[in-house]
Amino acid sequence: MKGRRLGEFALIGRMAERFRHSHPRVLVGIGDDAAVLEVEGGRVVATTDSLVEGVHFRWDLCRPADVGFKAVQVNLSDLAAMGSKPLAVLLGLCLPDDITDRQVLELADGVASASRLIAPVAGGNVSRTPGPLVVTVTALGVLDGGDCLRRDGARPGDAIMADGPIGSAALGLRLLTTRPRLARRYPSLVAAYRTPCASVDLGVELAEVGGVHAAIDVSDGLLADLGHVLHASRVGARLDADLVPIADDARAFCAEMGLDPVDAALAGGDDYRLVAFAAPHAVPALEGLGMTRIGEVIRGKGRFELFRGGRRVPMPPSPGYSHR
Amino acid sequence: MKGRRLGEFALIGRMAERFRHSHPRVLVGIGDDAAVLEVEGGRVVATTDSLVEGVHFRWDLCRPADVGFKAVQVNLSDLAAMGSKPLAVLLGLCLPDDITDRQVLELADGVASASRLIAPVAGGNVSRTPGPLVVTVTALGVLDGGDCLRRDGARPGDAIMADGPIGSAALGLRLLTTRPRLARRYPSLVAAYRTPCASVDLGVELAEVGGVHAAIDVSDGLLADLGHVLHASRVGARLDADLVPIADDARAFCAEMGLDPVDAALAGGDDYRLVAFAAPHAVPALEGLGMTRIGEVIRGKGRFELFRGGRRVPMPPSPGYSHR
Repeated sequence: MKGRRLGEFALIGRMAERFRHSHPRVLVGIGDDAAVLEVEGGRVVATTDSLVEGVHFRWDLCRPADVGFKAVQVNLSDLAAMGSKPLAVLLGLCLPDDITDRQVLELADGVASASRLIAPVAGGNVSRTPGPLVVTVTALGVLDGGDCLRRDGARPGDAIMADGPIGSAALGLRLLTTRPRLARRYPSLVAAYRTPCASVDLGVELAEVGGVHAAIDVSDGLLADLGHVLHASRVGARLDADLVPIADDARAFCAEMGLDPVDAALAGGDDYRLVAFAAPHAVPALEGLGMTRIGEVIRGKGRFELFRGGRRVPMPPSPGYSHR
Repeated sequence: MKGRRLGEFALIGRMAERFRHSHPRVLVGIGDDAAVLEVEGGRVVATTDSLVEGVHFRWDLCRPADVGFKAVQVNLSDLAAMGSKPLAVLLGLCLPDDITDRQVLELADGVASASRLIAPVAGGNVSRTPGPLVVTVTALGVLDGGDCLRRDGARPGDAIMADGPIGSAALGLRLLTTRPRLARRYPSLVAAYRTPCASVDLGVELAEVGGVHAAIDVSDGLLADLGHVLHASRVGARLDADLVPIADDARAFCAEMGLDPVDAALAGGDDYRLVAFAAPHAVPALEGLGMTRIGEVIRGKGRFELFRGGRRVPMPPSPGYSHR
């Protein structure tokens, strides 16, 4: 991809055109020192996450628009995991010298597509870098009247409820890196990896339904993310791996590849589905929202009982990904 | 610097210890999916900016703590330029493989030092990168009752008021890169470059004093940043360069080096002082806040009249820095 090279301010202007959808909450948007947002009062929720070229994405596996789209969704997912309604996002780009204007604008299209109807792009910044592309999104939301879904609120007896399917993103990555020709037959796996959609509405509903004590989004992998909640809440869990919701495409791809789709669901990451920890009385309501009961919270910090086929099995080794 | 290597979560834990100062506004801090902040309602201000190794800083010119400190100040300065009171910051780190735990924790010390009493670190994220260190700070603030100091509010007849001194940071960088042995004799220049302090209180006062129509912080350079306001406000300016506040150390260093301190003030950047555009009746109040009148807004978009020694002089070529 080649093309005329815009300067920093012209490039920002061209990106801003893509984000220009007036929104009553955005009092001051792109082009000033900072964004100003109208908030009715109460609790503001804020999160930030970066996608780094070569770590979180590879150009041979996804397009610029996918990267922009995913960078927003990853952050909206963190808002959802708090039960928060999105308000706006900020976009920070560290641009390597060899990225073209066209790639940057395609990336901006992906950002606009993910944010347009949910959380307008209200500001950000652009910088050069001698290294890889870094796309940083900050998402801001509000907690209206609902509960704040922290990680440290799970209690013994709580049902562990999963928003499915889980494992598809990790299988999509595996497909793209080992059997790219199968991409056409399993488009849902490829999409789960490239362009995941955060459970924005579900997060707000979980905060409003009552009885949800904790929640997290599955980004590091189901077992790893469950572990974060158990650690913060000082409790244990009993998990029935057979109940974890798995997509039909995931089962079919695994059958073809000789893989275990349950392993993919337990250890994989990047799904951005929600897991909620709820009082038993809230289970029917959560099932009504499409969630599946996959286990329960038990006493004992760090205790983890994993069941498959009705039998207790050992934990898989080192689930999750460490950035250090 | 060598040392035991902590994993991602242990490292985050060690950093979080440095940021652990309970604050009533931070309802949920580090360790959850997102931060939750108490806001009394009204207007929330948000800004994000990154410092990239090799672009915004070099390890031979500053220490890890300086980088962390500056990353916060740069963002607090953007809040100040909107007239906003800081609320909290988020810290995003992209860590190269060769950075040591000790360097990361020193950087966190710098972040803590800049944020502790002003805007607690309420969250963030850590990622690996195959490239240079990227430190991204997002700063959140509120506009209580005061004006919002936008870039597009300057009006013909407004006085242009500068918070001084200006130019010291650019001279500090020049000193460090060309005459490092002079660092001991001009510590204020070195500090202006390495550890600038945002005009946090002044920003809030400008919003409250009444009659301030626009403001910006000097990050790209005085002329470049003035240009941003003039462009957004569709007005021109007459600037008396002799009135721009310049530090004694800057004058002395320039005399020794055969440099013009006024040129450094006009073209330099990284000062993080505020420039306000205010109705004439507000000038005494702004002078009472330590600001200096350096010019006035005139009609005519893009018109820029620069005076030195009572005479009009041509504009210096291409002030400011482009990240593209």
